[in-house]
Amino acid sequence: MCADSTKNRILWFDELSMPEAEKAAKNGKVVIIPCGSIEEHGDHLPLATDSIQAEYVALGVARKTGCLVAPSLRYGLCNSTRNFPGTITITFDTLRSIMTDILEDFVRNGFKRLLVITGHAGGSHMTAIRLAAKKVVINHMKEENRPRIIVCSDYDFAFDLKGVEFDERDSHAGTIETSRVMAIRPDLIKGKGAPNYPNFPRFEITPDPEKYFPSGVMGDPTVAAAEKGQKINDYVIEQVVKLVKELEQ
Amino acid sequence: MCADSTKNRILWFDELSMPEAEKAAKNGKVVIIPCGSIEEHGDHLPLATDSIQAEYVALGVARKTGCLVAPSLRYGLCNSTRNFPGTITITFDTLRSIMTDILEDFVRNGFKRLLVITGHAGGSHMTAIRLAAKKVVINHMKEENRPRIIVCSDYDFAFDLKGVEFDERDSHAGTIETSRVMAIRPDLIKGKGAPNYPNFPRFEITPDPEKYFPSGVMGDPTVAAAEKGQKINDYVIEQVVKLVKELEQ
Amino acid sequence: MCADSTKNRILWFDELSMPEAEKAAKNGKVVIIPCGSIEEHGDHLPLATDSIQAEYVALGVARKTGCLVAPSLRYGLCNSTRNFPGTITITFDTLRSIMTDILEDFVRNGFKRLLVITGHAGGSHMTAIRLAAKKVVINHMKEENRPRIIVCSDYDFAFDLKGVEFDERDSHAGTIETSRVMAIRPDLIKGKGAPNYPNFPRFEITPDPEKYFPSGVMGDPTVAAAEKGQKINDYVIEQVVKLVKELEQ
Amino acid sequence: MCADSTKNRILWFDELSMPEAEKAAKNGKVVIIPCGSIEEHGDHLPLATDSIQAEYVALGVARKTGCLVAPSLRYGLCNSTRNFPGTITITFDTLRSIMTDILEDFVRNGFKRLLVITGHAGGSHMTAIRLAAKKVVINHMKEENRPRIIVCSDYDFAFDLKGVEFDERDSHAGTIETSRVMAIRPDLIKGKGAPNYPNFPRFEITPDPEKYFPSGVMGDPTVAAAEKGQKINDYVIEQVVKLVKELEQ
Amino acid sequence: MCADSTKNRILWFDELSMPEAEKAAKNGKVVIIPCGSIEEHGDHLPLATDSIQAEYVALGVARKTGCLVAPSLRYGLCNSTRNFPGTITITFDTLRSIMTDILEDFVRNGFKRLLVITGHAGGSHMTAIRLAAKKVVINHMKEENRPRIIVCSDYDFAFDLKGVEFDERDSHAGTIETSRVMAIRPDLIKGKGAPNYPNFPRFEITPDPEKYFPSGVMGDPTVAAAEKGQKINDYVIEQVVKLVKELEQ
Amino acid sequence: MCADSTKNRILWFDELSMPEAEKAAKNGKVVIIPCGSIEEHGDHLPLATDSIQAEYVALGVARKTGCLVAPSLRYGLCNSTRNFPGTITITFDTLRSIMTDILEDFVRNGFKRLLVITGHAGGSHMTAIRLAAKKVVINHMKEENRPRIIVCSDYDFAFDLKGVEFDERDSHAGTIETSRVMAIRPDLIKGKGAPNYPNFPRFEITPDPEKYFPSGVMGDPTVAAAEKGQKINDYVIEQVVKLVKELEQ
Repeated sequence: MCADSTKNRILWFDELSMPEAEKAAKNGKVVIIPCGSIEEHGDHLPLATDSIQAEYVALGVARKTGCLVAPSLRYGLCNSTRNFPGTITITFDTLRSIMTDILEDFVRNGFKRLLVITGHAGGSHMTAIRLAAKKVVINHMKEENRPRIIVCSDYDFAFDLKGVEFDERDSHAGTIETSRVMAIRPDLIKGKGAPNYPNFPRFEITPDPEKYFPSGVMGDPTVAAAEKGQKINDYVIEQVVKLVKELEQ
Repeated sequence: MCADSTKNRILWFDELSMPEAEKAAKNGKVVIIPCGSIEEHGDHLPLATDSIQAEYVALGVARKTGCLVAPSLRYGLCNSTRNFPGTITITFDTLRSIMTDILEDFVRNGFKRLLVITGHAGGSHMTAIRLAAKKVVINHMKEENRPRIIVCSDYDFAFDLKGVEFDERDSHAGTIETSRVMAIRPDLIKGKGAPNYPNFPRFEITPDPEKYFPSGVMGDPTVAAAEKGQKINDYVIEQVVKLVKELEQ
Repeated sequence: MCADSTKNRILWFDELSMPEAEKAAKNGKVVIIPCGSIEEHGDHLPLATDSIQAEYVALGVARKTGCLVAPSLRYGLCNSTRNFPGTITITFDTLRSIMTDILEDFVRNGFKRLLVITGHAGGSHMTAIRLAAKKVVINHMKEENRPRIIVCSDYDFAFDLKGVEFDERDSHAGTIETSRVMAIRPDLIKGKGAPNYPNFPRFEITPDPEKYFPSGVMGDPTVAAAEKGQKINDYVIEQVVKLVKELEQ
Repeated sequence: MCADSTKNRILWFDELSMPEAEKAAKNGKVVIIPCGSIEEHGDHLPLATDSIQAEYVALGVARKTGCLVAPSLRYGLCNSTRNFPGTITITFDTLRSIMTDILEDFVRNGFKRLLVITGHAGGSHMTAIRLAAKKVVINHMKEENRPRIIVCSDYDFAFDLKGVEFDERDSHAGTIETSRVMAIRPDLIKGKGAPNYPNFPRFEITPDPEKYFPSGVMGDPTVAAAEKGQKINDYVIEQVVKLVKELEQ
Repeated sequence: MCADSTKNRILWFDELSMPEAEKAAKNGKVVIIPCGSIEEHGDHLPLATDSIQAEYVALGVARKTGCLVAPSLRYGLCNSTRNFPGTITITFDTLRSIMTDILEDFVRNGFKRLLVITGHAGGSHMTAIRLAAKKVVINHMKEENRPRIIVCSDYDFAFDLKGVEFDERDSHAGTIETSRVMAIRPDLIKGKGAPNYPNFPRFEITPDPEKYFPSGVMGDPTVAAAEKGQKINDYVIEQVVKLVKELEQ
Repeated sequence: MCADSTKNRILWFDELSMPEAEKAAKNGKVVIIPCGSIEEHGDHLPLATDSIQAEYVALGVARKTGCLVAPSLRYGLCNSTRNFPGTITITFDTLRSIMTDILEDFVRNGFKRLLVITGHAGGSHMTAIRLAAKKVVINHMKEENRPRIIVCSDYDFAFDLKGVEFDERDSHAGTIETSRVMAIRPDLIKGKGAPNYPNFPRFEITPDPEKYFPSGVMGDPTVAAAEKGQKINDYVIEQVVKLVKELEQ
């Protein structure tokens, strides 16, 4: 987490000293909390893929808006990829608890404008984070200066671009995700991957979903490219900048 | 968390790809899990002080032993500093849960040699981590290839040096800790701090311990120096390397 | 819950006697568990709207397939409508617990083919049910005759028809839902309602979402009609029949 | 749950619309919450036996007093019959949680006069409901308009008649219960059953109590009759009407 | 807990040494676990009244049967007397947890014949203990040498004598209880108390039941006598001796 | 727990009557809560060793200061000795819960000066008690008359004497502990024990620590003596008297 530490301005919340943190709270600084996961992303992408993207976006937004970035929570909840090698998942209750604790404690410190951005966007992972946020805003809803919390995934924006430049079915470790990591951390790309468009049962809850996509890929990583990724990343940053500005109002 | 990513060897666990992670498990790689906290450390040190040291040690050990470093858990449990600005703490139950989940899931992935190193060393923080580790080793104690887990703080070693070169009373944000951060991240040091040797009640459980050390310092940061810090850091790394080698046997 | 009790065949699971239940388990009968909510649905629809639809579908499917319908769980989890009069909501953890208990106990009784259909389809309500089902299938995944569980909402199918006959924005208490209840329980319709297409913030987690749709309606109930509703209901039944047949294979 | 829906007056709470529910709360309407179980009741009675009776009483009371009946919770906690075919039980904690949620949310909606009537009357089932009610009344005990909650089983009254017309040992699926179901749902009676007066150990907690009454019956169903049942049911309704009137004061 | 420690035989389990405990387990010794409460018992009886009686019975039984007595759990769950001065109550969940832990750990140590006797006999207190015992016997029901657990209150026997020598309405701190304490610990009796036969609402769950019996007494302590108490105590011991013998078979 | 009951003054809290307890609260009496464990202490000491010492100290302090002693909690948390015969342990969560309940309920009764003394001093046992105390003081920190709670082990003082008269490595069931029990309950000493100075791994969390000290002893019991024990016990009482006086200020 050393990125940008030598720059003029501190982006990471926890690189502040105590008096600086106190001042930031008084100034109403927005704090972004990036989340990721440790999850297989095919043979060609690192386990940290989700974290890398969320942190990149968070830092990009911080540079443009002057907000702060809390330490990334790189441990997330992975249901469909749990049984693949390399996936390290925490439980729903743990994720909800730690997110509740973190949000609640930022509010206790006087930070009332919070934005959670998660690079991992699985259904129950998102619900755990949203329930945590919901609990915190309800806890404080009768206070004069109510906290405001936004929860989003960078894929809420990245997938806006599907249908235009990218296949509608593109998803986990596919063209978009591979392109994005190529733009951020090309040194971590291993090979090209292989296209795969799995058919999951729409409604059955299975204990072993990996059997439907043994390569761990949903989409076509072979047509990924760093320039495509850069454009997506820029677009996502731009969208999240808008959300931060909403919070600053 | 980009440190060393351009080096020949991957140090961070989650920069591996899925097949690399699978191979690492098969090869019996030790995984180090660094933990820290977001905690006031006086006016002169960053909130990330604990995390910075644990991660530095973990990476240093990984370079010397070939083990892997899991993503750092920068959210810890802070009791005595909770009410200072900047401290963001999670609860005992959350810390115990996430550490249990993480250790259990590394074991599920086939990583049976784990070492947790925490830069924060508060009593209940340590107990939460130890109870998590205890639960996991008990869960698997009847298996043939039982997991082995070591839990330590780098201050278990750094404080070995007290009495010789450093004041016996030196502690939180004092000479040793300030020296260590000066050696690792000099860019994050703000001023010199001021000496403070607080007298805590030995047995009373108080809701507001901050009143006993309003500066947030326990020790004398003014005599800290980067060279002292480097020596300590080297010593700590050396000790943890020994523990990793024990695990590898 | 007296519907059809005088017919030749028992549709409701709990109208069986003990020996009949034992026989049904041995015969591999599919059990459908309908869920609803007690939730405001504008001025024109009853609080039981979600339950009514799910139970109607469940009974319709049972008539066509010979499966059984467990007692409806009419208490659900309502987040966005919680603060309206009439909404009685249970918590996420309670919903997950009771659904886990129910599914687990049907499996213990030898019923290995289960289908949950919920008339309420809120995000965290769905996640709670899915996590319950996931837990149960994982609990038994190493058994020879593994249980299979499907979780769906009748709105997974009813909304298939949007864009064709119905407005894309139609939702809670709108044209589709009003039409469906008109077809099932016309006696419970009060007036015509009024059209309303609310704009929710896309990402902010608010403690008082009711301010964005004070009438409690999302869509246009004024163009609803019983014949439209009947067609939708028939379509949904037809789709769920397919799922039951999948389970029977 | 369609009973009486075509009558002039709505008896079921969730058949109200939102504005009707709001008005009912303002008018101080008593709400009855019926509970049952899914439990073996010998070869001759349906699994829904407990629910059927509680709902019948609740509706009867509603007709006489003008109170409302909440959706029945047909899932209860069965300890002694758990291992018989057909018994679907939820856990103590789940029952306590859902009952707490339901009561708490009715109070939040302004319904301050609540009566829980349960057709199942096992010891821990009753304790779970009472603890839920206790928690809710304690939560609100410092408010001006404190909620009042009554918890009873219809067997608190039905068994008043033992010793006079019925055998003192009559109990689960015996003369009284069989007679009552014969009066309410004769279509669900299968055969006559057989008399059985089991001897349970008075104090030992056994994991398999079914071995003491393999037929699942405690009493003599062969002397049951619909007229007897009708008299009992009328008596129970009369008693619960008194309780509702106490709440209305 | 020094009673009888100078006698030839050790009655208290925890006065054994490690090898003696091991031997006792091998010999299949029954262990009695006495429970009490810290609860007002009028002006004339000590808060420890419930504990005193259960421990007296337990030791009496141990003397006659050669079984062992575990340390008394003097902290119990008091609902109806909670708001009186002097009542110190633990929660339902805590009581259930500690009783589960204790029973489970005796079983783990090889003690498979356990008897819990509680001097406090409130409804939820009893249910908490019974649920704990139930969980433990279910946990081990598939083992060859299944544990057997009896749960009783000494009032299950003491109240057998009502109607004959004592008023049917006699209860908490009344004739029977006062007599029993007079026989065991006459030094702790303060004055004579005053008769009081409260009328509780039969079904309402109230947050402040103390208003129905402001003296904290239910019965007539003024006619209590030590000789009566001794007879009751002897009778209770005799009954519990029978239960221990059942367990020894 | 009959000690001193015939003396002029009541030492045990629960030997008070209700009005006496009310008066004691009004008079601001300090309450001491002794805790112990049921734990192997070699072949020569009883399982109750920890409880015996804590209760002896508590009563000694009560005699000197006029404070009250609550019933002892003889069930504690034993990690390192769990697998030895005779050790009966409760879990961390149970210990924390019961201690929280007890402290919270004394505060509710008006006792605002509390001192927990535990004869067992294992790390997680101590943390569980401290977390309970911390929670209670935080719960009430905004009240005018805040509760004050001290948590200590008598070994916090007894081990002060190490290095002078006793071996630095003396610990569990060693010279100090054996001497203390010899002074308090000589009738419970069985033989002399044998010296043993185990080497535990400093950081590894093992599921079977008993393998490092098969005799269950850490120290040299053979040089223990009752006079030594008496001196230690007197010293500990003297120290705890000081703490009680601090609380009384």
